[in-house]
Amino acid sequence: MKVTPQNIRVGTRSLPAQGGFLHAQSALTLLGLAFPADWDSYARTHGLISPQRDFGIGAEPTLSLPEFVRLGFEAQTPQARRWQKTAHKLLARMLAGDVRLSAEIAEASPDPQAGRWLHARLENQNARKLLMSTVARHGGSAEVYGQLGSISNASVLGMDSASLRRERGVKSTRDGLNTDELLRLSYLESATARAIEEQGLQGNAAILRLHRSVAAQERQTWQGADARNPAPRVGVPRLNGASRPAELSPQAG
Amino acid sequence: MKVTPQNIRVGTRSLPAQGGFLHAQSALTLLGLAFPADWDSYARTHGLISPQRDFGIGAEPTLSLPEFVRLGFEAQTPQARRWQKTAHKLLARMLAGDVRLSAEIAEASPDPQAGRWLHARLENQNARKLLMSTVARHGGSAEVYGQLGSISNASVLGMDSASLRRERGVKSTRDGLNTDELLRLSYLESATARAIEEQGLQGNAAILRLHRSVAAQERQTWQGADARNPAPRVGVPRLNGASRPAELSPQAG
Repeated sequence: MKVTPQNIRVGTRSLPAQGGFLHAQSALTLLGLAFPADWDSYARTHGLISPQRDFGIGAEPTLSLPEFVRLGFEAQTPQARRWQKTAHKLLARMLAGDVRLSAEIAEASPDPQAGRWLHARLENQNARKLLMSTVARHGGSAEVYGQLGSISNASVLGMDSASLRRERGVKSTRDGLNTDELLRLSYLESATARAIEEQGLQGNAAILRLHRSVAAQERQTWQGADARNPAPRVGVPRLNGASRPAELSPQAG
Repeated sequence: MKVTPQNIRVGTRSLPAQGGFLHAQSALTLLGLAFPADWDSYARTHGLISPQRDFGIGAEPTLSLPEFVRLGFEAQTPQARRWQKTAHKLLARMLAGDVRLSAEIAEASPDPQAGRWLHARLENQNARKLLMSTVARHGGSAEVYGQLGSISNASVLGMDSASLRRERGVKSTRDGLNTDELLRLSYLESATARAIEEQGLQGNAAILRLHRSVAAQERQTWQGADARNPAPRVGVPRLNGASRPAELSPQAG
């Protein structure tokens, strides 16, 4: 098997890594710490449990990223203090919602599709906001907001958001959605917002009826048009009580 | 003036903030620290220099985000230790290039255009990569990569990247670009990549000549078509030595 180094950027440095684990010796050096003669005893003392990996000269100890962060805050060398200052700055930028930091993190992602997912997720938030403000202008109130989301989730995801979070092991629903699911939700909610506006609907009941019908329609479109039952024209969504969300393949996005 | 609270999310809590400064009392409470009876002396001791802000009941002390982070790491209360653990996790996710964290940060941005900028910046990276791989397939070598970037920068930004970083006070060139500039660079480099492919060009000289000509053309388009001098057909870019990047309004994106 070819050894594929995969560097992880730490501040201005780039550390060798394998599958998300840092080359321990390089990481310790960055923190100004000597690599211990007896790694096993050092690892026991510091509670380090990461696996060994081959960086080109046979198996070597690694540090997970949480282990590296912990050691970085424990160490009191000048290098570690410098790293701590950098970490403080990053945390402040994170709290500030610094979109440049957001870009740096996305660019550091090993997933080549990360940018596409990120865009889909941010678009999803825009679509949701647009729907909510449209609903507010059309006499929607209180409980309708949650109900609209529930209809969207049941239709696109085939389950409610609590089940999704449980099944996919995420704290926030959108963290568990893949790009297609985000795209479908954005599309569905944009289509409903547009139709509410166009048809001049008023009140919770009319809005929910419309959204159910747009959702059923979207599901049909996604699953492939049924030749015997052509889709109605855009803007005239139709209720389709028969169809059920089928063969969704839940997978963390 | 209306007092507009603007919360900043810290972990699962949301702290009152004004213009990026946290309400000091709420922030200290989150860290399990008592609000001091004598703020001025506390501030002197801890090197806190943030201005007072009105949160609805007159001027009150604030903490900048870096000050909050520093106090959070200094404090040894159970609440501060919990916050430190959260901070460690965030740093590990940041190092891992966790695109979900990237989304959370972008969503926390107070700028409503943050998503658009982020998308433009990530697209810009894709366009650059595409151009570079096209150039590599068409016999481009070594120094041509930097030269292409220089031509793009001179044309779109009206200056080289070192001057831009200095003028706009940023470390990385792309951090200093606004959405329009990112869009123009992506467009320009995509157009050149496409034309290299289509015209089957080979070698540094031919590639650079083409890119200069596409850049001049893009600049003209952006500045408004000149009626006396209609643009040539797409795919046959023409050199236009006369035009200069004019009236660029440099501003950090």
